[in-house]
Amino acid sequence: MGLHLVRATADEVSAELEVGPRHRQSYGIVHGGVYAGIVETVCSIAASLWARRHNQSVVGLDNNTSFLHAVREGKLSVTARPLMRGRRTQVWEATVTDATGRVVAQGKVRLLSLEAGSALAGEKVGIKKANSK
Amino acid sequence: MGLHLVRATADEVSAELEVGPRHRQSYGIVHGGVYAGIVETVCSIAASLWARRHNQSVVGLDNNTSFLHAVREGKLSVTARPLMRGRRTQVWEATVTDATGRVVAQGKVRLLSLEAGSALAGEKVGIKKANSK
Amino acid sequence: MGLHLVRATADEVSAELEVGPRHRQSYGIVHGGVYAGIVETVCSIAASLWARRHNQSVVGLDNNTSFLHAVREGKLSVTARPLMRGRRTQVWEATVTDATGRVVAQGKVRLLSLEAGSALAGEKVGIKKANSK
Amino acid sequence: MGLHLVRATADEVSAELEVGPRHRQSYGIVHGGVYAGIVETVCSIAASLWARRHNQSVVGLDNNTSFLHAVREGKLSVTARPLMRGRRTQVWEATVTDATGRVVAQGKVRLLSLEAGSALAGEKVGIKKANSK
Repeated sequence: MGLHLVRATADEVSAELEVGPRHRQSYGIVHGGVYAGIVETVCSIAASLWARRHNQSVVGLDNNTSFLHAVREGKLSVTARPLMRGRRTQVWEATVTDATGRVVAQGKVRLLSLEAGSALAGEKVGIKKANSK
Repeated sequence: MGLHLVRATADEVSAELEVGPRHRQSYGIVHGGVYAGIVETVCSIAASLWARRHNQSVVGLDNNTSFLHAVREGKLSVTARPLMRGRRTQVWEATVTDATGRVVAQGKVRLLSLEAGSALAGEKVGIKKANSK
Repeated sequence: MGLHLVRATADEVSAELEVGPRHRQSYGIVHGGVYAGIVETVCSIAASLWARRHNQSVVGLDNNTSFLHAVREGKLSVTARPLMRGRRTQVWEATVTDATGRVVAQGKVRLLSLEAGSALAGEKVGIKKANSK
Repeated sequence: MGLHLVRATADEVSAELEVGPRHRQSYGIVHGGVYAGIVETVCSIAASLWARRHNQSVVGLDNNTSFLHAVREGKLSVTARPLMRGRRTQVWEATVTDATGRVVAQGKVRLLSLEAGSALAGEKVGIKKANSK
């Protein structure tokens, strides 16, 4: 998708995306799936960084993304911040702004914590190392 | 994303996607953003086809997608069906199944109807012709 | 709220509510909180009945309810059916119809499974007996 | 429901609720429907106050509420703040805190703007006067 990570900690994850033709639907505005996708990505990375501290990993449960203003071009910035970081689940909220700083989309992702060694789609879950993405 | 339309009418839109490396996150399962993206796509096409009958177009408002089972490979099929098709807004629900027919994700998209000539992000909305996608 | 259970199994839960003054907001239509509330109730009962089979209980995580048609009076019927019943989480969908059978609202609830004896808000979770509500 | 308005402007609406037996489900914690209901209420009041400035009224479209921490007792405070206040739709976010100031639930409501005189469930929509609730 062309999303570039800017900062990633267990407290906040930010990324940027330069809008191009592949991000637009037929009216020429950014496709809703792009917003939902970048929201999912930054929230998942953030939750994963937090989970690692407790030797857990995470898997996404639900993504709810609202489209607030139509955008045609320029750079989108997305930042995930925690609403709740528990041992069973986490909830992260991500805000997408356009090049002028206007909030153009907002999303929320709930993730389930998995203990190391849990089965997921037929394989054991490993806990990602600090340097892996 | 590699999504192929299978059938598109104002009553139902279906599409397929063959899972590949670009659809997987770091655990090797399909990324939540892929599900949200294909849900958004089929619901938007469907709502647009319905809106055209009333000389309207649509723009997405909210996407809510739930991840039900983790998938590693194979073909995903997604089908959008209407929950409500009104003159002001529409709500479509899309179900994603894996190659075995199991429901692996489900999403819902609310879309706003726009009259022809409405302004959207600084441009006039045109109504898409029957043969355009 | 005046909701009456009609049928409750681990596969489907139905309930009814006769619209009265306390359910209406200032325009005279049923308040959105009523739909979200009855969706939450039937999904929670259903998930709890399923969880009990595995000596688990459940707690709600997220409620997403869409309002499809405004209703002023008459009987509302709500039915919850499972989208996914797993050992870690469950997702139930509930449909609300008015007296004419029209779908007027639809909601989805994700619930987390808790093992017997888990701590929840400072107390141990007990597993509800078959005859308790 | 026992919700008391504390402050209501077109920029922010706050309310409080003292948890009692009617707000609890069978585990003794506040029912998810209560959170969704108070989120719906404060967001609707806020959006309505904003809409009135443009001779519009509003009707709720979707309510998405996340439950973050279980609560057994005490006072809940809920505050709605705008994510987007447009001429076609509005999106408000409401945060629920417990007596200790901890965020225990968070919700988002999308509302549709209606021009004065629009038909809604068979009746004309009037625009509420400044002193009406």
